[in-house]
Amino acid sequence: MSMLVVGSVALDSLETPFGVRKDVPGGSATFFSTAASFFGPVQLVGVVGEDFPEEPLRFLADRGVDLAGLTRAQGRTFRWSGRYGYDLNEAQTLDTQLNVFGEFRPELPEAFRRPDFLFLGNIHPELQGQVLDQVAARPKLVAMDTMNFWIEGTREKLLEVLARVDLLFINDAEVRQLSREHNVVKAARFVLAHGPTLVVVKRGEYGALLFEKEQVFAAPAYPLDEVFDPTGAGDSFAGGFMGFLANRGADLDADSLRQACVAGSTLASFCVERFSLDRFRELTRREIDERLAAFRTLTDFRPIA
Amino acid sequence: MSMLVVGSVALDSLETPFGVRKDVPGGSATFFSTAASFFGPVQLVGVVGEDFPEEPLRFLADRGVDLAGLTRAQGRTFRWSGRYGYDLNEAQTLDTQLNVFGEFRPELPEAFRRPDFLFLGNIHPELQGQVLDQVAARPKLVAMDTMNFWIEGTREKLLEVLARVDLLFINDAEVRQLSREHNVVKAARFVLAHGPTLVVVKRGEYGALLFEKEQVFAAPAYPLDEVFDPTGAGDSFAGGFMGFLANRGADLDADSLRQACVAGSTLASFCVERFSLDRFRELTRREIDERLAAFRTLTDFRPIA
Repeated sequence: MSMLVVGSVALDSLETPFGVRKDVPGGSATFFSTAASFFGPVQLVGVVGEDFPEEPLRFLADRGVDLAGLTRAQGRTFRWSGRYGYDLNEAQTLDTQLNVFGEFRPELPEAFRRPDFLFLGNIHPELQGQVLDQVAARPKLVAMDTMNFWIEGTREKLLEVLARVDLLFINDAEVRQLSREHNVVKAARFVLAHGPTLVVVKRGEYGALLFEKEQVFAAPAYPLDEVFDPTGAGDSFAGGFMGFLANRGADLDADSLRQACVAGSTLASFCVERFSLDRFRELTRREIDERLAAFRTLTDFRPIA
Repeated sequence: MSMLVVGSVALDSLETPFGVRKDVPGGSATFFSTAASFFGPVQLVGVVGEDFPEEPLRFLADRGVDLAGLTRAQGRTFRWSGRYGYDLNEAQTLDTQLNVFGEFRPELPEAFRRPDFLFLGNIHPELQGQVLDQVAARPKLVAMDTMNFWIEGTREKLLEVLARVDLLFINDAEVRQLSREHNVVKAARFVLAHGPTLVVVKRGEYGALLFEKEQVFAAPAYPLDEVFDPTGAGDSFAGGFMGFLANRGADLDADSLRQACVAGSTLASFCVERFSLDRFRELTRREIDERLAAFRTLTDFRPIA
């Protein structure tokens, strides 16, 4: 099954209690495609500047990420810098420089216009809509992410594109903000009333909740004794989730969606063990399988008669 | 199996976004014994003042809580008042009046000295130790709770009593504070190195983690669309957990402990649906069984091959 992601490719500068990194690969499309690539090929649409190094692009290409939709534009790459305290759940943004990303107008190469799975990373909702306009046939599953900036500034546009997707990935603070409901169950129901049939509410170190019309599934985060850098965890979750489903090619039944949630939580758990993409550079399929199995040990209990 | 709880019996005054209550029944022993009573009889040791109303005592007695260890002392009952915002995870304490609880010296009636299960509610660690001194035979399971106040003020005494118990119930902020570790896995390991063989880390609306020497079990909180008043949720969790185990009388094997965690989360989920004990007043065994089953639907997924 073909998989397309449209989103940012960035250079991140990070400060955590465990170290400092400058201009390391980041961005939603980067993390998403890397995580999804463990399950199958991915097509990427994005933009970098003249200063973006070759090495991360080779890494992505080697992992099966098709970069035919990645433009190299004149100017500097999108840069984000942030700081985390010991409470690694929330980043303090120190600086954002849109650079070439500010002029990003996603253009899907002809070969990318019939994805089975489509992930609209966290970009302007208008651009997310333009991507949907370029898709020639209805994908099996369209998912999107967003953030507080778009909820505050472009709420109407956001609701328009929301009505066109199947699945929203969103963190708990953001879903409360979007729905204007403090209760997360009510907040998820608000989303389900505005288009999507699925909502994944991401809760950082506490895991994620998958809401369907009738059911809720709770996937914990994997309890790690070293969390190094949470940057990219949400996009790695989405990449693991959708990559898992695309690889199965199965109907999107409740069982598969729950397993996808666990796959998402698994890939996110690896992401945060090192800075940037570093953990993914050495990650093996066998380690993924072991952690997928460990998730069952983590959550399984005998039915209570 | 006999069950003993030693802790506070209080009058709470509460403000939440959903209403205000003045002088309603509260306290660790009250919530614990009520929750545990759905699984079997409970013996309670505590103290109230002359002003404590009869009605809640009749309620407890009718639920099978043996109040032979509840003293009525001269003076006023322990009072706590707190306020919750829309983020119901944390209370702002407005006022604490220890009153007769300040002079509380737990005395176990002769008939209470051989409990199979013992819960030491959140009181001065020295008093927790004095309760253990009065127990004539080693219980099957001794559990304790504590809070930031004792961690800050009586850390050494707390570590002494910790070495004498099997299970610590503690919330995530407190376990970090006690262990001086920011990572919750490391924090739990600190506790396991200081006596207990089990730690339950309570995470409010995010559920709880049960740490054994070799394994971790993650129990989510039940996703509720109305959370009214979180007061007593932690003690209701402990009451459901221990009541479930005592009722089974089973060996404390890993399977039973995981089920107990789900039972704890179930009783906590009911507790928060109304103020004070109100939800428990109408709660039926059938509703409990339905929610226990719903927890399986909430967390179960097909093993990933």
